[in-house]
Amino acid sequence: MTSPAKGDAGESAFLTDTTVTRVDERTWTADVNPRWNIGNNPNGGYLLAIAVRAMQEAAGRPDPLSTTAHYLSPPTAGPVTVEVDMVKPGRSYVNVTARVVQDGRERVRLLGVLGDLEAQKGPTRVAARPPVLPDPDQCVSMRELSEAAGRPVPQIMDRFDLMLPRDTTWGRVPEDDPLSVTGWIRFRDGTQPDQRSLVTFADAFPPTLIGSIAAGWVPTLELTVHVRARPAPGWMLGTFVTRFLMDGLLEEDGELWDSSGRPVALSRQLALVLDRA
Amino acid sequence: MTSPAKGDAGESAFLTDTTVTRVDERTWTADVNPRWNIGNNPNGGYLLAIAVRAMQEAAGRPDPLSTTAHYLSPPTAGPVTVEVDMVKPGRSYVNVTARVVQDGRERVRLLGVLGDLEAQKGPTRVAARPPVLPDPDQCVSMRELSEAAGRPVPQIMDRFDLMLPRDTTWGRVPEDDPLSVTGWIRFRDGTQPDQRSLVTFADAFPPTLIGSIAAGWVPTLELTVHVRARPAPGWMLGTFVTRFLMDGLLEEDGELWDSSGRPVALSRQLALVLDRA
Repeated sequence: MTSPAKGDAGESAFLTDTTVTRVDERTWTADVNPRWNIGNNPNGGYLLAIAVRAMQEAAGRPDPLSTTAHYLSPPTAGPVTVEVDMVKPGRSYVNVTARVVQDGRERVRLLGVLGDLEAQKGPTRVAARPPVLPDPDQCVSMRELSEAAGRPVPQIMDRFDLMLPRDTTWGRVPEDDPLSVTGWIRFRDGTQPDQRSLVTFADAFPPTLIGSIAAGWVPTLELTVHVRARPAPGWMLGTFVTRFLMDGLLEEDGELWDSSGRPVALSRQLALVLDRA
Repeated sequence: MTSPAKGDAGESAFLTDTTVTRVDERTWTADVNPRWNIGNNPNGGYLLAIAVRAMQEAAGRPDPLSTTAHYLSPPTAGPVTVEVDMVKPGRSYVNVTARVVQDGRERVRLLGVLGDLEAQKGPTRVAARPPVLPDPDQCVSMRELSEAAGRPVPQIMDRFDLMLPRDTTWGRVPEDDPLSVTGWIRFRDGTQPDQRSLVTFADAFPPTLIGSIAAGWVPTLELTVHVRARPAPGWMLGTFVTRFLMDGLLEEDGELWDSSGRPVALSRQLALVLDRA
């Protein structure tokens, strides 16, 4: 019920690498693939997609309406267990909690409410527009920007086409302006986005602080993603903004818009600036 | 460690009504007072302050940096139990989960990370300003607005001074503009705000939809509050915005600013429009 279209090349890295296998009523296993790594650790949004897969199966509902993740201890590539417990088995909305465990240690704790967006009824009123960017082929890839800045290109960058405007002004933002990153994103292997992949896209952009603040690492304390619609195929637009960096704590507010111009997900994370150690 | 100043009149309703009593290592009891009711049910932000009190004690940390609440089943006034379980007892950040239970039924599930904002170190860069409003005595009270509109005034309105601009244009917002509510707030009995009361203030304003959409009830599926600073005494400014109402689901994004002009909390909730039934 939640399979995105297969990649043009046959294999979908997202589908393959977020496969979960049920071993009992509340336990799933999965294999964390290093090709989603940043340095030595898997990306948080990738881990989220594994956990959400098990949560969808446990809840019997297709859409992760709200998913909150607390990152406790970074896992490495290899086997993990996802334990899902029912919180409330409602008719329209099902609340569940999940733990991602590796080597006997809990790595991520999640709390989510799932539902069915196709069955959702009520008024619609959108008072926002997608960001306006040059077409993807007029933008520059994140890989190219990273290489030009002498930054290491993490393995996960091979999973996405991530295109940013050529005038991206990291580190040269006037003091009173928010820090932001806006760009186009899609899976590089042609996998089309589904509702579950939105939790991965919501954590796939570079940190808004990049280039502005001397930060070695911007670990996430808490990330919440609201999936608001199932995305149309094609490129998605993502925009991420930080307005409040206070004593090393910051929020990152994200919006994802699909190729039909529809908002499909909102995200917010609370993160921490750590010095280059 | 988390007591706000007592009310001018002696008793602080907030302090009294959010008292928790530890009964064992992981269990607290509390008494939900009907003077925080909206209709027959206690306000969600008030319940949150009770749960956060127990979470502060369990974690041994003063500041609820991020608190996510899933509202499962509305309780009524009367005794509740708060069960808190450690998720990760970190050095700087402590993750806990909590359940608010009444009559054997779970009413709210929480996931939070607590820390100590006074010990927090790192860069600061705020790229936002507080909303500009006429002084509170030039505004109109929520009570007066409700009475003028023939709406019932819930009991909880006696707990706050909530002052809104006279040109508040509920129901007359151009289609492309976000729905928003902005106003001044403080406890009516003179209790000064503390970091814990911010979770209550974050859910004390009328829904952004009020007057615009024929909604009988706007129940919260999930609410996350980030406490970013301890508030100065005095009036606080709150501003709440909805940009994406889609098929009856909406977010409400809140900011709270203290009397010194400092941002003290960010909130986001996912809510649901239900017809007047």
